Amino acid sequence: MNKVLQKPIKQIRLDSGMTVAQLIEEMRGAAFGAGRLAEAVDIYEAMLCDDGTKFLGFAGAMVPAGMRQIVVDLIKERQIDVLVTTGANIVHDLIEAFGGRHYKGVEQVDDLELRRRHINRIFDVFLPERHFTVFEDRLLDIFADIDRDGMSIRELLTEIGLRVDDPNSITGVAAEKNVPIFCPAIADSAIGLQAWLYTQTKRLDVDTFKDMREFMDICYSAKKTGAMFVGGGVPKNFILQSMIVTPRGGFDYAIQLTMDRAEMGGLSGATLDEAKSWGKIGEYARAVTVYADATIALPIIIAAVKERLNR
Amino acid sequence: MNKVLQKPIKQIRLDSGMTVAQLIEEMRGAAFGAGRLAEAVDIYEAMLCDDGTKFLGFAGAMVPAGMRQIVVDLIKERQIDVLVTTGANIVHDLIEAFGGRHYKGVEQVDDLELRRRHINRIFDVFLPERHFTVFEDRLLDIFADIDRDGMSIRELLTEIGLRVDDPNSITGVAAEKNVPIFCPAIADSAIGLQAWLYTQTKRLDVDTFKDMREFMDICYSAKKTGAMFVGGGVPKNFILQSMIVTPRGGFDYAIQLTMDRAEMGGLSGATLDEAKSWGKIGEYARAVTVYADATIALPIIIAAVKERLNR
Amino acid sequence: MNKVLQKPIKQIRLDSGMTVAQLIEEMRGAAFGAGRLAEAVDIYEAMLCDDGTKFLGFAGAMVPAGMRQIVVDLIKERQIDVLVTTGANIVHDLIEAFGGRHYKGVEQVDDLELRRRHINRIFDVFLPERHFTVFEDRLLDIFADIDRDGMSIRELLTEIGLRVDDPNSITGVAAEKNVPIFCPAIADSAIGLQAWLYTQTKRLDVDTFKDMREFMDICYSAKKTGAMFVGGGVPKNFILQSMIVTPRGGFDYAIQLTMDRAEMGGLSGATLDEAKSWGKIGEYARAVTVYADATIALPIIIAAVKERLNR
Amino acid sequence: MNKVLQKPIKQIRLDSGMTVAQLIEEMRGAAFGAGRLAEAVDIYEAMLCDDGTKFLGFAGAMVPAGMRQIVVDLIKERQIDVLVTTGANIVHDLIEAFGGRHYKGVEQVDDLELRRRHINRIFDVFLPERHFTVFEDRLLDIFADIDRDGMSIRELLTEIGLRVDDPNSITGVAAEKNVPIFCPAIADSAIGLQAWLYTQTKRLDVDTFKDMREFMDICYSAKKTGAMFVGGGVPKNFILQSMIVTPRGGFDYAIQLTMDRAEMGGLSGATLDEAKSWGKIGEYARAVTVYADATIALPIIIAAVKERLNR
Repeated sequence: MNKVLQKPIKQIRLDSGMTVAQLIEEMRGAAFGAGRLAEAVDIYEAMLCDDGTKFLGFAGAMVPAGMRQIVVDLIKERQIDVLVTTGANIVHDLIEAFGGRHYKGVEQVDDLELRRRHINRIFDVFLPERHFTVFEDRLLDIFADIDRDGMSIRELLTEIGLRVDDPNSITGVAAEKNVPIFCPAIADSAIGLQAWLYTQTKRLDVDTFKDMREFMDICYSAKKTGAMFVGGGVPKNFILQSMIVTPRGGFDYAIQLTMDRAEMGGLSGATLDEAKSWGKIGEYARAVTVYADATIALPIIIAAVKERLNR
Repeated sequence: MNKVLQKPIKQIRLDSGMTVAQLIEEMRGAAFGAGRLAEAVDIYEAMLCDDGTKFLGFAGAMVPAGMRQIVVDLIKERQIDVLVTTGANIVHDLIEAFGGRHYKGVEQVDDLELRRRHINRIFDVFLPERHFTVFEDRLLDIFADIDRDGMSIRELLTEIGLRVDDPNSITGVAAEKNVPIFCPAIADSAIGLQAWLYTQTKRLDVDTFKDMREFMDICYSAKKTGAMFVGGGVPKNFILQSMIVTPRGGFDYAIQLTMDRAEMGGLSGATLDEAKSWGKIGEYARAVTVYADATIALPIIIAAVKERLNR
Repeated sequence: MNKVLQKPIKQIRLDSGMTVAQLIEEMRGAAFGAGRLAEAVDIYEAMLCDDGTKFLGFAGAMVPAGMRQIVVDLIKERQIDVLVTTGANIVHDLIEAFGGRHYKGVEQVDDLELRRRHINRIFDVFLPERHFTVFEDRLLDIFADIDRDGMSIRELLTEIGLRVDDPNSITGVAAEKNVPIFCPAIADSAIGLQAWLYTQTKRLDVDTFKDMREFMDICYSAKKTGAMFVGGGVPKNFILQSMIVTPRGGFDYAIQLTMDRAEMGGLSGATLDEAKSWGKIGEYARAVTVYADATIALPIIIAAVKERLNR
Repeated sequence: MNKVLQKPIKQIRLDSGMTVAQLIEEMRGAAFGAGRLAEAVDIYEAMLCDDGTKFLGFAGAMVPAGMRQIVVDLIKERQIDVLVTTGANIVHDLIEAFGGRHYKGVEQVDDLELRRRHINRIFDVFLPERHFTVFEDRLLDIFADIDRDGMSIRELLTEIGLRVDDPNSITGVAAEKNVPIFCPAIADSAIGLQAWLYTQTKRLDVDTFKDMREFMDICYSAKKTGAMFVGGGVPKNFILQSMIVTPRGGFDYAIQLTMDRAEMGGLSGATLDEAKSWGKIGEYARAVTVYADATIALPIIIAAVKERLNR
């Protein structure tokens, strides 16, 4: 409390043609969301420059919304060491890898009319069911081509990724670049539904807990650790819980992009401060939550840091 | 649109000593959240009275917050046929079953001080780490006592439940009453962390996809289907996705209690209308979302329906 | 921090036929929203029992939603000493007083079709424009009947209230019972629009700042002060700001029902703790925010306290 | 519905050094918040290029947060014709004009300690009370210097603005550039509190309804109309309600930046579609809501449009 009243708010000034990093520079002097967004850029840059292991928790329908290439590029540039995501993001990544597309729709629509036209809706994204049909056929072929027992979920995703022929697929590029993808709730997705169909006649042996060792080994061997959480859900908790049993003492860097609220008590909306009581975030960590739609905040942060690192 | 302006808003009147169902009766004539809460009570009552299969999706830190006994009673009275939940809710249920307690704390607190005192925080719930230690010891004993290979996650939870000695444990009572508990993301919890420890020296063989058949068989054989979603996350999606491949055409009844927003596009905040475009919710379904803290809305709905059914 | 871990969470138990106060009793032992709702009931009861001045800030479309009678009864039972509200709530109160009705509609609707049918929508409330026509005629008559210069807004509302013939009108009953209604933004409502029409040919002399003295005199003479804030906006700020210049040192009791967020920095979502830094809420005040739809939380709190006071 | 599935989602690609408008170009092909933000930029550009009257509704603690200069520049470049705001934004603008500063603080803090140190908190902005003291003295001097009766609130603000000596004051620049500022709830601010002090001995005659004629004349004479709503509250409603009695048929362009929710029924969170049922927004209007912290969204939109118009 001794150093309050040290930093006057700097009123933001906007110029024509300013770059994203220049805009963030202006936001640094401001408060509320603008200030936190600028802080997230600082922390993300520091996290990339430090010699640590970088985790991305990636929840929400981010691939349908247009965030796929960003993650692919992060993997290619090795700015992610570990990806933890939902089954849905893998599924929608594969749909695009198999030639399907998501379409820009509207959120105010007659959903029963959509159903009659075999179009699935994800807020304002439309997805024709026929793309799912292609996905299902291709996935069954891939399952049939995998001849391993006792796989972990990560190993299954690597096997799938190696059979994907799309330079812009998260699953494909991650497999190629040896960036592990963890997806604890994989059964909770169209992959789970296809596994159900497939295992009615064939064998697909994937162990629920086998991932834990690989994941924990990564955590144990890391010098420094940083995490970017896009949304909450299983990816956020799975990344954070590892630190409870890791002797290092919690993440050194953490950025959370979310619209969930803390007051309802769920983990998705929990503050990063709360995570410190568990030892999930370190005592001296740099951490910030940006309360924003991730489709707005994520591109800004990545673009700004890209520009800074390129100077 | 022909029948608009048929139902005037009835201004709520409150009496001293009114019962929960009487309060809901007053709310029925009102709008916004009050009207929707009353509608949820109507739908839940209809769902219980219909001869169908009832699913409960149970996400968020509901057990630490005090919703455990409600679920136990629902299972005992067979008002739930299938429970889908998070690993965390199972863990916190077991912590209480093993003699631990959650404590009422405050949300404005020095989390590093809590950490030094070995207290974990879940918003305004405090949990001493020593209760986790007991949980871990007991769970390792239970793991050692289970001698089965190729279990599904549901089977693992039943095995655990059968070894729990607490008449008020969700896991225990569900096992006793043959109410299956599905928990696709079980690795994402302290159970996953203990499985990691255990499997460093021993074998625990749990198949990721094996649950799918049992779950889909339940869906296929159901005459009518109804779902109450407390929060979103994996439980909501896992319950809903089953209907995509079920010929019945979607849930007949659906109630969602959430504070998540639709506009960010994630499944947790998605409207039940959106689910209709996928065939997850039926064309003629009765469905409502109550935008409320589940710790407020769930007790009200259950208490009101209990009273009505007892008349 | 010495007394953490004193109060174990009590798992909520529900009984058939339980009263609202009994439900709240169960919620007291729980956390998150349930715990805070129970705390709000305790604080509201203490506030009513204390010998103080009770303010109600009443924002949002509460009258269209069905909360009108609750406020009328609070005024009749003198559980409100001062009402601060929006122009809209006065307008919709008068619409009902003049024989109009609000109707229960739906929120998913073609708004252009509604417009063609001359129906105005307030989320899921429909209001035919013809009720506005009656309101306008009646209000112009009332304006013409008032022959005073230099009125304060409160005096204008009392004059209107005295000309309302409806035992269930907030404006009417408040005038009758000498409960002052303050409405700083009155021009921002259909009353303002009618004033614009009226003053094209006639004189209506209402002073913007004249209310301040009466309001501040109430604050200065109060022994104890308590405030219930239904929503934020002008009513919340207007009530709170009075304490900045009142020597008493802030409200002794405060309850806030809101869904607004603190993180965006606006006053509506600001925490009651923040208000303490300004001296708006007292150092030893009992204060709680319930993050809930007010149409759910308000009836519960009032019904529970009514029951307790009647014991 | 015939043209669904026409626009595939374009996965966002980020480049180092990209400008804000280039980032928006990438966001245009995406969904959720990113897509809507890009749409807001398109609409705002179209609104500026059209020959219409441009309204800015400006609610929330935007001046303390750092948005003051943006509004000043918009006024200077005549990209705003009418400003409607809260008393608080005027007050904080004047505090800076009188030499005070807002300071970047933190949101997790002991508010009673702040109070003891005479620092007021607005989320993560700190404001020393001594700046208020200067504000109060200066405002009383200005009041004394104004010798007019029967002023409208707009006229009062112009009189104040003409006495402000700061080229970066919203109030000052607006007065100089003849951009009217409307502030219906002016009593609900520190200006109201000073008016109370001042009028204990002197006269300050400001008419509540006098603004209506000037405001409605602007609306009547406008060829086209566009509105940007930063937050909700009185500014949003006051701007929108004017169209109910204007024969033109509603705003032609509308952009809303908000985090408020529609489901609670309040006007602040109401959708722009709902406004169409009232005729507040025109049938053929271009309108979009961006669900975002305004301190993030506003600078982006303004910077992107500035860049486009400069090409």
